[in-house]
Amino acid sequence: MALIVKKFGGSSVATTEKILAVAQRILSEKKSDDKIVVVVSAMGKTTDNLIALAGGIDAQPYKGDYLREMDMLLTTGEQVSIALLAMAFKRLGQPAISLTGAQVGMRTNSVHTKGRILGIKPKRVHDELNKGQVVVVAGFQGADKLGDPVTLGRGGSDTSAVALAGALKADECEIFTDVDGVYSADPRIVKNARKMKEITYSEMLEMARLGAGVMQPRSVEMGQFFNMPIHVRSTFTRELGTIIREDYTVEEKDFEIRGVAHDMKVAKISVLGVPNSPGIAHTIFQSLADANISVDMIVQSIRNIDRDINDIVFTINLTDLPEAKKVIAVASEKINAASVLVEEDMAKVSIVGAGMLGSPGFAARMFGALARADVNIDIISTSEISVSCLVRGSQVADAVNSIHDEFFPDR
Amino acid sequence: MALIVKKFGGSSVATTEKILAVAQRILSEKKSDDKIVVVVSAMGKTTDNLIALAGGIDAQPYKGDYLREMDMLLTTGEQVSIALLAMAFKRLGQPAISLTGAQVGMRTNSVHTKGRILGIKPKRVHDELNKGQVVVVAGFQGADKLGDPVTLGRGGSDTSAVALAGALKADECEIFTDVDGVYSADPRIVKNARKMKEITYSEMLEMARLGAGVMQPRSVEMGQFFNMPIHVRSTFTRELGTIIREDYTVEEKDFEIRGVAHDMKVAKISVLGVPNSPGIAHTIFQSLADANISVDMIVQSIRNIDRDINDIVFTINLTDLPEAKKVIAVASEKINAASVLVEEDMAKVSIVGAGMLGSPGFAARMFGALARADVNIDIISTSEISVSCLVRGSQVADAVNSIHDEFFPDR
Repeated sequence: MALIVKKFGGSSVATTEKILAVAQRILSEKKSDDKIVVVVSAMGKTTDNLIALAGGIDAQPYKGDYLREMDMLLTTGEQVSIALLAMAFKRLGQPAISLTGAQVGMRTNSVHTKGRILGIKPKRVHDELNKGQVVVVAGFQGADKLGDPVTLGRGGSDTSAVALAGALKADECEIFTDVDGVYSADPRIVKNARKMKEITYSEMLEMARLGAGVMQPRSVEMGQFFNMPIHVRSTFTRELGTIIREDYTVEEKDFEIRGVAHDMKVAKISVLGVPNSPGIAHTIFQSLADANISVDMIVQSIRNIDRDINDIVFTINLTDLPEAKKVIAVASEKINAASVLVEEDMAKVSIVGAGMLGSPGFAARMFGALARADVNIDIISTSEISVSCLVRGSQVADAVNSIHDEFFPDR
Repeated sequence: MALIVKKFGGSSVATTEKILAVAQRILSEKKSDDKIVVVVSAMGKTTDNLIALAGGIDAQPYKGDYLREMDMLLTTGEQVSIALLAMAFKRLGQPAISLTGAQVGMRTNSVHTKGRILGIKPKRVHDELNKGQVVVVAGFQGADKLGDPVTLGRGGSDTSAVALAGALKADECEIFTDVDGVYSADPRIVKNARKMKEITYSEMLEMARLGAGVMQPRSVEMGQFFNMPIHVRSTFTRELGTIIREDYTVEEKDFEIRGVAHDMKVAKISVLGVPNSPGIAHTIFQSLADANISVDMIVQSIRNIDRDINDIVFTINLTDLPEAKKVIAVASEKINAASVLVEEDMAKVSIVGAGMLGSPGFAARMFGALARADVNIDIISTSEISVSCLVRGSQVADAVNSIHDEFFPDR
C-alpha cells in the first residue's frame, strides 16, 4: 500500500473529456490498496476568464481592498474542477470526494492572492481515504484564520500538492505537467539535452532561480522542508520523469553539473560616471528596493582612477524595467551621474550542480566553452552551486549548446 | 438606523454592468447608519451552464452519489457573484465584504441539492456590519455539519434571505424581482389586476400553492416562522411593492378576497367503473404515493348505485403525468377498473382570502362568475381560505377575468 499525492494542472483538466481521461489514467495505475489524493488546478483558461470578469467591475482588479474578493472569485475555479473530477471517478465506479482548500485544513496567512501556507491539518483527508475514497483536492487555495479563502499565487497548486503530501506523510508526490521531467538544458534549445532521473532540492531551486521553468521554487522548498520526493512527469505519457529529492540514490552521481539554465528576461542598467564616494551605491540600490525591484548581478568598476569616477552596472528582471527606468532617472540625478545606459537584449546562462562545491575547475571550463562559441561574457556571478554569465540575448542558443557539449558530452 | 436584508436574483446580476447598477441602487437608498445585507443568486445563466458542464461527465448528473459534487459545483455560481458585487461596492467607495453560505453560519441538513436550513449562527455577519461593511451573502447555499456545501433547491435564494433576516432580527427583508409586487391576479391575463400593498403569510402560501409564481412557499413559511415582513418589489423601479406579513396594517381590509390564482399545469385522471368495495381508493392512491406523486383534487362518485360501480377522479401536476400513467395502468388492472381516462388540457382557478373564513357567500359568487363566462366547472375543492375549481385549460383567461371582475370591481 502506498499513499500518493498526484497533481494535475489546468491544461490537463481543460475539458470534461480531459477530466475523464485523468480519472481513467489514475485508476489504471492505482493498485487496489493504494490511497490516492489528487490535487487539481482550475480548468484551462478559467482563472483568466474570472480575472476578465472582475475587469468588468474595475479595470484594475488586482489592488488593495479588492484582493480579498479576487480570492473569493478565483477559488471558484478549482472548486469547479474538483467537483467534476470527483464525478468522473464515480462515473468510472471509483468512490471519490472533492474537498476545497479550507476543507483539507490548509491554513494560510491573510495575504490575499499571494498567501503562504502556515500549516495543514488534513484530518478530513485521512478520514475519507480510510473510507476508500479517492480524495480530490482544490489546489492553489487555503483559508486564513477567519475561514476566508486565500490563493497561493503563481505555482500555488504545486505548492499545495507538495505541502499536502508532506502533511499526510505520503510516499510520493507526483506533479504531472506538459514536460516529461527536468532536463540538463531546455530541450527546445539543446537538441541532445538529457532527462535527469534525479536532482536534489538545492539544485532544482538553483535551476529555477536561474531561469529553468519546470517547477516554481516555493513548491521545491516545500518538498525540501518535508523531505518529500517530488516526481515531475508527463500528463501525456506513462514514462517515469525526474524525482526531486534530498540526495541521489542511483548512478547519476558522475555528472557533477546537473544542468545548464538560461534566462532571457534580463535587462542591464549601467549608471556611468558616478563620483567614487560613500553612499552612492546605497542611493541607487535603496531606491530600487523602495520600488520593490530585485537586483540580480552587480558590478562596480573604477573607470578612471585619477578622477575617482566609477561605473555601476547591474541586472534586473525585464518586467521591472519600465519602473526601474523612472527610479534610476531620479537617483542618477541625485548622485550626479554622467549618464545611464539601458540594454534590454541580455540573457544569463548558468551551470548548476552540487558537485562543483569547492571544485574550481568548472567555471574555467564554462568560460572556455563560451569562448569557443565566440560568446563574449559581460558579467560573471557565482554561488556555491552555480556559475552565471551575462551574455548577448542573440547568442543564448550558441552559449547554452556549447556549455552543454562541454559538460554533457554525447556518450 | 435599520438593518435590512435585500435579495437580488440571477437576472438582476447577470452582467458586471448590472452588478454595478445593483450596488449603485442600494447605496442611493441607504441611509448613512443603515446596516445592509445583500443576498444574491448566481449570475444569469451560470447555474444552467454549470449543470451543462456536469453533463459532460455524465449525461445524468442529478442522481445518487453525484449530488454532493453537484452542490460543490453549483455553489461556485453564487460565490462568483458575491465577490463581484462586493468589488462593485468598493469601487463605489462603500466598504463591503462577501461571505459564502458556510461563512454566514447557514447550517443545513445533508440532503444535497434539496437542503433544508437547520439553523443560522450569523456572528460573522454582525461583526462585519459593526465594522461598517455592507455584507454580501451567497444565497441558495449553506453547509452541513461536515462543512460540505449544500444547495437549497428551487427558490433557495429567497429562503436564504428571509431566514438570514430572521436570524439577524432584521427590520425588513426585501426581495427584488422582475415583477413589482403581488397582484390580485396574473397581470399577463387580467388587465386590471391590482397590486396589493399587503398580504398575509397564509394567503401568500395559499396563492403560491394554487399557482401564483411570485414567491416559493418555503421562503414565505420562513417569513412566517420568524414573523419577518417580506417586501416583494421590482429591481427596475423604485416603487414600493407588496409586503407579506402576519396581519394587515392599512386600509385594504375591505377586500375579503386577496387574489385569484390559476394553475395551468394540471392533469386529470379518471379511473372509471371500479367496484365499490373497501381498499380500492387505497390501492390507487398508495401506488401514486409510492411513486412520489402528489394528488391534488379527488372526487369519488357513485355512477351506478344498483351495480355498485364507482368512478374515482383526481388531479395531479402535469409534470408527473408520464410516471402516473404507468402507475395507474398497473393499479387499475389490479382493482379491475373498466377504463382509465386522462385529460391533459385542464386548469385550476382559485380565490384566496383569509376574510372568507366562515363566510359562505364567496363560493357561490365565484360559481356565478364562472357561469356568466360560460365556463363549466369540473371539480370543486375548498380550504379554509380558498375555493378552487377545475376548468378547461382553454377557458382559463375567461374564468380568471370573470372572477376577478366579481371580486375586484373597477373603482
